[in-house]
Formats: sequence, structure tokens, C-alpha cells
Amino acid sequence: MQFEITSEFINSFKKAIEEKNNVFLKEQLNEFYAQDIAIIINQLNLGHASYLFELIEDDIAADVLLELDEDKREDLLATFSSKEIAEQLDNMESDDAADVIAELPQNIQEEVLSHIEDIEQASDIAELINFEEGTAGSLMAKELVSIYAFETVTACIEQIRKQTDNVDVLYAVYVVDNNERLIGMLSLKKLIMSHPLARVDEIYEPDIQFVKTSTTSDEVSEIMQKYDLVVLPVVDQLGRLVGRITIDDVFDVIRETADENIQRMSGISDDVDSNDKIWRLSRARIPWLLVGMCGGIVGSRIIGGYEEEIKIHPEMAYFIPLIGAMGGNVGVQSSAIIVQGLANNTLLGDNILPKLGKELGVGIINGLICSALICGYSFLIEDWQLAATVSVALFTVIIFASFLGTFVPLTMNRFKINPALATGPFVTTLNDIIGITIYFLMGRLLYTSF
Amino acid sequence: MQFEITSEFINSFKKAIEEKNNVFLKEQLNEFYAQDIAIIINQLNLGHASYLFELIEDDIAADVLLELDEDKREDLLATFSSKEIAEQLDNMESDDAADVIAELPQNIQEEVLSHIEDIEQASDIAELINFEEGTAGSLMAKELVSIYAFETVTACIEQIRKQTDNVDVLYAVYVVDNNERLIGMLSLKKLIMSHPLARVDEIYEPDIQFVKTSTTSDEVSEIMQKYDLVVLPVVDQLGRLVGRITIDDVFDVIRETADENIQRMSGISDDVDSNDKIWRLSRARIPWLLVGMCGGIVGSRIIGGYEEEIKIHPEMAYFIPLIGAMGGNVGVQSSAIIVQGLANNTLLGDNILPKLGKELGVGIINGLICSALICGYSFLIEDWQLAATVSVALFTVIIFASFLGTFVPLTMNRFKINPALATGPFVTTLNDIIGITIYFLMGRLLYTSF
Repeated sequence: MQFEITSEFINSFKKAIEEKNNVFLKEQLNEFYAQDIAIIINQLNLGHASYLFELIEDDIAADVLLELDEDKREDLLATFSSKEIAEQLDNMESDDAADVIAELPQNIQEEVLSHIEDIEQASDIAELINFEEGTAGSLMAKELVSIYAFETVTACIEQIRKQTDNVDVLYAVYVVDNNERLIGMLSLKKLIMSHPLARVDEIYEPDIQFVKTSTTSDEVSEIMQKYDLVVLPVVDQLGRLVGRITIDDVFDVIRETADENIQRMSGISDDVDSNDKIWRLSRARIPWLLVGMCGGIVGSRIIGGYEEEIKIHPEMAYFIPLIGAMGGNVGVQSSAIIVQGLANNTLLGDNILPKLGKELGVGIINGLICSALICGYSFLIEDWQLAATVSVALFTVIIFASFLGTFVPLTMNRFKINPALATGPFVTTLNDIIGITIYFLMGRLLYTSF
Repeated sequence: MQFEITSEFINSFKKAIEEKNNVFLKEQLNEFYAQDIAIIINQLNLGHASYLFELIEDDIAADVLLELDEDKREDLLATFSSKEIAEQLDNMESDDAADVIAELPQNIQEEVLSHIEDIEQASDIAELINFEEGTAGSLMAKELVSIYAFETVTACIEQIRKQTDNVDVLYAVYVVDNNERLIGMLSLKKLIMSHPLARVDEIYEPDIQFVKTSTTSDEVSEIMQKYDLVVLPVVDQLGRLVGRITIDDVFDVIRETADENIQRMSGISDDVDSNDKIWRLSRARIPWLLVGMCGGIVGSRIIGGYEEEIKIHPEMAYFIPLIGAMGGNVGVQSSAIIVQGLANNTLLGDNILPKLGKELGVGIINGLICSALICGYSFLIEDWQLAATVSVALFTVIIFASFLGTFVPLTMNRFKINPALATGPFVTTLNDIIGITIYFLMGRLLYTSF
């Protein structure tokens, strides 16, 4: 069952490794699934990790390798000989093996391939690494069971016996015509419940979902989620069955897309995680910081234009952060709702007007509440001119921010730019500048007219 | 195959409905899967939606209903009689039927249950609606195939024939002891490949993952993702098999959790989407706006304390937005990385120090770059006092923001509060206040000492 891996627990491993207490370590490793062992190894330094990896039973070593963080796996494999890597790849499904080999330096890839004993596995891997990343071809595995439509249930069961050596979990058998073109599928349940002499073409399901090798991963993920599929067959340009994608591979796509969206929304421009090196983390963050800084400089020029007003009424400066912060907050709220609607397909991207109207409505309600409160407050501590300036400016800023927060991601989406980019620093910076402009314009108007 | 549903396409449906062109509509409906029909109905008003729903073939009507947005489904069901609702529920799996009935007003639920013809289905639904939301019990379905360990493969296949009426897709058969306690499972592949007279207890897999009815949905989702499961059995407090959870239900949990995280990060305090009513959208957003406003007011008090300095050096005010914005941006970047690491379990939550150190490193690098640039800029346009104030303040603010952006979500996580809450308005507001304080402190120090 489940248990939490704490750093205390990791420390007991470190200690046992340093003491070379193999009895304890092997005993512990036996208790765990590959996924849990991988979590432990991810927390160890390379020396400790290699030591522990050596102790893992052969039958789950490949699984552990697959579950490791990419950086840790690369480091670990760098300590292996080509022959040792090949042995691990032999125990993986073809799609996983292709992913691992693609991570290796180019000059080692061929050498590793040549060491793989199972010729079919080697040729499957060689085929798979040619597919472009982000396509169905790069996600699919070659292991599947296919059957001709003219065969019988008995022959089909015989095929399953022959072909499933490498298939961990079998969900269905694919039906092909004489030219190997995919024409349907046969569920194991149907197979079990049919007469042994029934012909496949009498019982198979012809109306099934499939994709081409060139279909994008995002589309694959969308189709599998939408139609609740656990496995999806892949065909080539001629419609011939060439592989299948399972739901666990799509989980990774979904997680990566969600991570990417959160990072773009937070102004991080590269795919990083907290275990990356400091320099990589810095580089991924500096671009949007510089954009934010340019926005700040533009803001400073605008305020600079009101130097005289500030000298006479320094209280004008008090509310600069409030106006900026509120514009940013409202803009982020609006754009998050839009980005999410687009990501979940609950929002059709081609009809902007009704959405703008609705956001305007929300902006008016929340704008009225906020500006009424700030009006009361600033009247109490200062005078009515300041109260009027701040509250009218705040209301206008909230309306503008709602509008921009809706309009910018919808427009970006239309031009096929990831709208999550808009939700973060871009909308915030824009709103900062617009907010300050409105605030000081209002201030000049109200302070000088009365 | 896939196609994009555009608003032009939706309009052709609206037109056909208004013209009561049933021939066209039925022809179109026949071409679509339930999921696509639901997307179309989601975009129609209630009158059009009811009209179109009437035309859907009986065998997929229940599926369409399940795929609709919750609001749209509620509205549509409100136009149905209890008997009509019961007919739809009869065609659903028990977990889906329980979800739908739970959405109905309390007084109608019993009436609908009494109209369900299949007594077993009615009692399954009645049992399932009692489980608390967010637990394995509320996610599971009752439809499954179980077999006693002492039975044979032939008996097992007979059971599958009898028990799978309601199971859409069958992945495995569960093995129970004489007291109905779950002891393992038997994959269909294994079943197909075993001798008809083999006993189940000779071939079943005893080492399987399972959860209790009281396990949380998040844990269920974590287990299924971690161990790549497509179905997970559920047992009661006595270990008796009571249901199973399929991967499609977990997809919904994952999507909802991801949506919730993005909303918390964006300062939206309730689960809303862009199709919700204006009032609901406003209410979900106002709390964090008010927090932001309080932050702004605190900021205004701090600046107010430097009234004299601003009168003499109004250029001090120019860089208020820059300091605020940079603090916010850096804080959001840092906390996003932490929130993500925690969500993906790549980061152990109980060891804060090394993470703080790393963030500090990133902060120092990016802080040096940004403050060097701003130092040069402000020296060029003003004097060296301002240049020193702005650049030293900016550097300090970036370091503080990195620190807070790391520390706050890690601390919240430790106290079991959703760390995504910290990433948005909370860290931004805090950084705004701290940033201004540092900036004006530096200003007073540098302008008055020289």
C-alpha cells in the first residue's frame, strides 16, 4: 500500500549505503514497487544512486530506470557500458526504450542498438526514434496483437499467446485486412464470450478511434480523454496498423502541458523544475523579469511627467502601488478564466464579443465594490479630491484590466500563440502602465479643475 | 474522426432547430459521438437544447447527458419528469447515475430512485450517493466481475457472461475469498491463456493495489497515475470488495485539481468557469481583490510616512511601480516552481533549507543582472543617489521575493493548506508591501547620508 517517503527515510538509505549494509538495502528494495525505488534514487547523489541501482533485481531494474527523473537517468546511464544499457532496453516496451535511447548522446545510440539481443526489439526502437517529438509516432509502442478479419476466435487466442510476450497489459486485439490496414478491434471481453469457431469479421467492432503517426500529442491526448480510451491504435499514411498508444503515455503529456501552462502564467519561459541547476533556473526566469523592468521604466517616465503635481500633492504618490496591484490582480483573474476555458474546450475561441461583455459585467460589479470602499477610506484620511481621483481611477483600471485580461489571451489563441503566456507578466505589465496613466490623468483633471 | 466544432457550425444547428428541420438534425446527430453532441448542446439555449435532445437516439442519450456541462445538465433535467430521468439513469453505469442524481434537488431524488426499473441499479445508486464527495466511495462504480478463488477458468468465463451486462469495458476479474474479501485479480489475458480447468487460485495475481472507500480522491488519482493503473478495486472497512474506479473518473479528478490550482494561483477563490453567471464570477473574485486592496492601503500608509522626502525628491516616486512589479514577478516565479514540485511529488515537502538556498542563488544572479541595468539607467536620467537607491532596493526586493516565494508555499504545504493559494495574490501583496518599505528605507538612508 501507499506510504509517504520522508527525508528521514531517505537518510536511512544513505546511511545503509555508506555502511554497505546490503542485507538491509535488499530487504528494503524487495518491499517496494519500481516507482517508489525511483523516488528514493532521485534523492540520492550519483555515487549512492549507482550503488543502490546495482542491488535492484534484474526484473524491475528497467522499470526503475524509466521512472527516474530525466537528469538522474542520464547521469546514471553515463556510468553504464553500451552493453549494460542495451540489456536494460531489452526489458522495456519499445516506446519506453526509444525514449531512453533518444536521451543518449548521438554517438552512443548506434553502439547501444547494436548490442540489443532481440533483433525485433532493436528494429522497433530504430524505427521509433525517427518520429518527430510531439507526434503520435513518438508516443506509440510497437507491441500489439493484430489479427486478420477472416480468422476464427481460436486462431485469435493462439495469436495472443504468440504475440503478447512483450505486452504488459492487453486491452484489445486489432483487426486488419489482407493489406495490414486497420479495420477495427475486438475486445478481450467479446473474445472470451464468443464461440471458438466464430469468425473475427462476424464479431469485431469496426467503428473505432485511431490516429496517424503524424497526429500531434496534444490531439492524441484530447481524443483519448474525450472518448475515455485506454489505448489508441496508430496507422501510417496508407492506413496500415503500426503501433498503439496507451493512457499512461498520455498522462505524461497532460502533466507536461499543465506544468507548461502554469510556468508560462508565472513568467517562466523554459521548462524547468525545482531540481534543475541554479543557472538554468535563472535563465528561464530572466526574460520576463526584463520585460517587467521595461514596463517599470515606462511607468517611471509616465509618473515623471507629473513631477510638479507630486511636489504639491505628494499624497498622489501614496496610491500608486494600490492602482498597480489591483490592475494586475484583476487582469490575472480574467485571463486565468479564459485560458482555462480554452484549455478545457469549454470555450469556443472564435466568438469573443459575448465573453468581453460578461467580463465587463464582472468588472463593473467588483469595480464598484472596490472603488466605493477606497473612496470612503481616502476621504476619511485626506480630502474629497483625492477620494474622487483614487476611486474613479481604480474603477477605470479594473474595467480596463478585465477587458485586457479577456481580450489578450483570446487574441493570442486566435494567432496560435499559447494564451497562458498572456496571463502572467504580459497582462500584469500592460495593466501597470495603463493603470498609472489613468490614475495620473484623473489626478491632474480633478486636482486642477477644482 | 476528429473535427473542430466552430460557432459557424453551431449556428447551422440553431437554424435547423428553428426551422424544425428534423431530417437534417437526425442525419447530423448520427454522424457524431455522444461527446461531440454534448459540446454542441452546451452552446445552445435551453429551448434549442431540449428540442435537440429529444431527437437523440435512446442508446446514446444517457451518454450525451453525462458529457454535458453541469449547469446545462441541471437545466435540461429540470424539464424532465422523474420517470424520464429514471429511464436515463437506468442506462448509465452506477457511479455516473449516482453523480447525476446527487445534482438533483433533494425532494426529487427519492422519487426518481423509485422509478428506476432495475432494482439492483436503484440499490447501487442509493448506496453510492451516501459516500462523501472527494472519497474513493464517491468515485467508484458497483459494476464489476468477481470470482471465488476456488473456481475454475471455465466457471470464471461463465461469470463474466452473467455479470458484464453493465460493464462497458472489462479489464480484469477480481478474486475474492469465501468472505467476499478481495485477495487479488486475474487479467483477461491470463484468463484467455490458461487451461479451462485451471483453478483461479493457481493463476491469479495476489499482489495488487487497492483502496478503501474512505481514501481521498487525490490519493486515488496519485496511486493510479503512479502505478499506471486503468482500474483500481475498492474495499470496505472489512476488506470486502465493494466497487472499482476506472481511469476516466480519475481524469476528471486530475483536471479539476489542475483547474483549482490555476484558479488559486490567480486569486479566484471558488471553482468557476467562463460559462458561469456574472454574479458567481464576481463573488469568486472579490475576496482576493479586497486582500490586494488592503495591501495597497498599507502600502499607501508606508509611502505616506515619507511625505517630506517625496516633496523634495519627487523622483523617488517614479520607481514605485517598478519595485512593486519586480517583487511580484519574482515571488510568483519562485512559488510556481515550488507549487509544481509539490504537486508532482518531485519535491519532498519536509526539507526546506536546500530549496531556500537554491532560490537565493537564483535571486542573487537575476537580482544582480536587473539591478545593474536599472542602476545604469537611473544614473543616466537622474543622479547617483537615485541610481544607488533604486538598484540596491531592487536587488534587496528580488532576494526577499525569492525567499518569500519559496518559504510561504513550503510552509503552507506543511500546515496542509493548498500551496497554490500562496503563489498568487498573497505573495504578490506581501512582496508589494515589503518592496516599498525597503525602497523608501534605502531612499531615506542614501539621500540623507550624502
